[in-house]
Amino acid sequence: MIYLDNAATSFPKPVAVKNAVTDCIGNWCANPGRSGHKNAMKSAETIYEARKKVGEFTGFDPDEVIFTWNCTAALNQGIRGVLRPGDHVVSTVFEHNSVLRTLDALKNRGINTTLVGGTPEGEIDAASFRKAFKWNTRMVICTLASNVTGNIMPVEEIISICKESKVLFLLDGSQGLGAVPVDFSVVKPDIICCSGHKSLMGPQGTGFICVRKDVDIVPMLQGGTGTESKNMSQPLDMPEGFESGTLNVPGVAGLIEGLKYITNRGVRDIKKLEEDLIGCLQEELKDIENIEMYGNKNPEMRTGILAFNIKDKDCEEVASELDIKYGIAVRAGYHCAPLSHATIGTGNRGCVRISVGPFTTYEDIIRAAKAIIKIAE
Amino acid sequence: MIYLDNAATSFPKPVAVKNAVTDCIGNWCANPGRSGHKNAMKSAETIYEARKKVGEFTGFDPDEVIFTWNCTAALNQGIRGVLRPGDHVVSTVFEHNSVLRTLDALKNRGINTTLVGGTPEGEIDAASFRKAFKWNTRMVICTLASNVTGNIMPVEEIISICKESKVLFLLDGSQGLGAVPVDFSVVKPDIICCSGHKSLMGPQGTGFICVRKDVDIVPMLQGGTGTESKNMSQPLDMPEGFESGTLNVPGVAGLIEGLKYITNRGVRDIKKLEEDLIGCLQEELKDIENIEMYGNKNPEMRTGILAFNIKDKDCEEVASELDIKYGIAVRAGYHCAPLSHATIGTGNRGCVRISVGPFTTYEDIIRAAKAIIKIAE
Repeated sequence: MIYLDNAATSFPKPVAVKNAVTDCIGNWCANPGRSGHKNAMKSAETIYEARKKVGEFTGFDPDEVIFTWNCTAALNQGIRGVLRPGDHVVSTVFEHNSVLRTLDALKNRGINTTLVGGTPEGEIDAASFRKAFKWNTRMVICTLASNVTGNIMPVEEIISICKESKVLFLLDGSQGLGAVPVDFSVVKPDIICCSGHKSLMGPQGTGFICVRKDVDIVPMLQGGTGTESKNMSQPLDMPEGFESGTLNVPGVAGLIEGLKYITNRGVRDIKKLEEDLIGCLQEELKDIENIEMYGNKNPEMRTGILAFNIKDKDCEEVASELDIKYGIAVRAGYHCAPLSHATIGTGNRGCVRISVGPFTTYEDIIRAAKAIIKIAE
Repeated sequence: MIYLDNAATSFPKPVAVKNAVTDCIGNWCANPGRSGHKNAMKSAETIYEARKKVGEFTGFDPDEVIFTWNCTAALNQGIRGVLRPGDHVVSTVFEHNSVLRTLDALKNRGINTTLVGGTPEGEIDAASFRKAFKWNTRMVICTLASNVTGNIMPVEEIISICKESKVLFLLDGSQGLGAVPVDFSVVKPDIICCSGHKSLMGPQGTGFICVRKDVDIVPMLQGGTGTESKNMSQPLDMPEGFESGTLNVPGVAGLIEGLKYITNRGVRDIKKLEEDLIGCLQEELKDIENIEMYGNKNPEMRTGILAFNIKDKDCEEVASELDIKYGIAVRAGYHCAPLSHATIGTGNRGCVRISVGPFTTYEDIIRAAKAIIKIAE
């Protein structure tokens, strides 16, 4: 199988990721922060090492890193934990349902949202955030890149605008973090939410939220924290107060290896490879009359995604033919991002999304291009 | 190392659990319910198989089984998703902080709690639940067994009382489910919350909540569900509406093998082994003057736990000596259950907890007994 669905979850994972999970489950996995014996300590040390690694990668202190089971949980924590009745939020039409539906649910708690629009190419103008601000705007939420088109958002500029107006900035890193170079010593979001199993190459069941110490945030869930056992109210200390219940230690052990892998390979090099691969695919398809491609035309400005449709063909059918006839795995449909589709003109049909990863080869891309051309003919 | 901390997380896991996780990460892991290609379908089928397995084990339909990342998340979903302002809840002093702290947080939403008390032996009288009912009692929350003493709660009787009064019953199965035989064709909780990584022998990062279709429950989190992508409000269908974001597919694949393992070995046989092991330990320690043991004296009435203290010795010191000097891993302290300790008389000192699992041997137990006696001398 040629796997071109890395924006859903990266595959394959680096061998070290699998080995770390296996080693943990097989040899030493215990409950971190609860007991004091050797395996419990080793588990706790692993979690701490992961906090450090995530923190180094994102520009946060280790104790500002909270582990969750996926990015949706991280986003719910970041949004629900910070916003209060009366607050106003600015976000974008390119967000995933994990943001859009959470904001929708908060409407009836008196939290209102303005969504910044975009162009049919999936671009967004940073200045439009400033225009959307109200006296009570508390937070801007923006994805690093669109999960539909792959377009990279002008995050650095948006953050500057937020800082000017003292508005918190929450970055949804699930698309792009680990595959798009961001200098986090300069670009400093107040909150970053991310999944571990996409471009960070960790296993599913991992995610995190990084929160600066000065952000006023409360835990979304209550439970055992391994701290202040005698306190029947939830401790509010970071990170433990936000990590109730047993953590996914083998998953986090795997995430460490995922982070090491991309750090060793270099995010810049991964970006270059992915953009060259996608550029190559785009080049192969650009003269095919009935293929319509979406997003910024320059692959440099996108993650390793190519979104397209074949005119008069249902996108699900195209994906199904790619899978069954050619052994090529892609995703088709609405990608949990309804307003992205409405904006780029695919609101009633969705699109096929091809997404590469650090293990994708040119051979994969050439075979995919040939298959798509065959289907389009 | 002799691992006697199975109530925190079971260890070792059956080899098949580790192998299933490794196979999934290494060979076919994709995003279930999102894409339609072979690996995505295999991932979705795995999740469905797990729903069936959990459902068969607990007496629920597959689509009444919602996967979470741990039991704390399941309990928060079950409690927050069902209770409304004005509701009254009855629970017990033997609950874990995952219940106590969640109920504490709901106080300021007008949800009040009565906690049923217990005896110094850690016993509870089912009839006291009836006495605690008020006109607005909506739910009873009770653990299957105490995580401190291991005492098994009279769940069958409590459920009968709930049915009489049309009060919902939520079972916290994290202690005991998989190690205590319960006939779920007779005993029918409305909701069961459980972790996957304790007596069900699955990996960490797994848990679930089973909810009968007629229970009025709303999702705790919002996000992408792989369903109704164009709907910007959270879908309320079970189970997908309650599983926003990417599931821990390798973890769930491992949980299937954990469930198979305990089903093949037989929960009755596991219970018999664990109670014999703990009975043996109890027998070895019973004549040592300065050892105080807690909970029901009959190991048949407990899970595989023995809670104890050595008079005048700090419990953490005892655990530390067991670890460092004898290579025996146990847990000491307050075990995230403050009221259990207050009730059994260890409110100011906590206790040492020894917890066995299906892989514990008599040799382990004899060595632990000898070590404890040495320390007590």
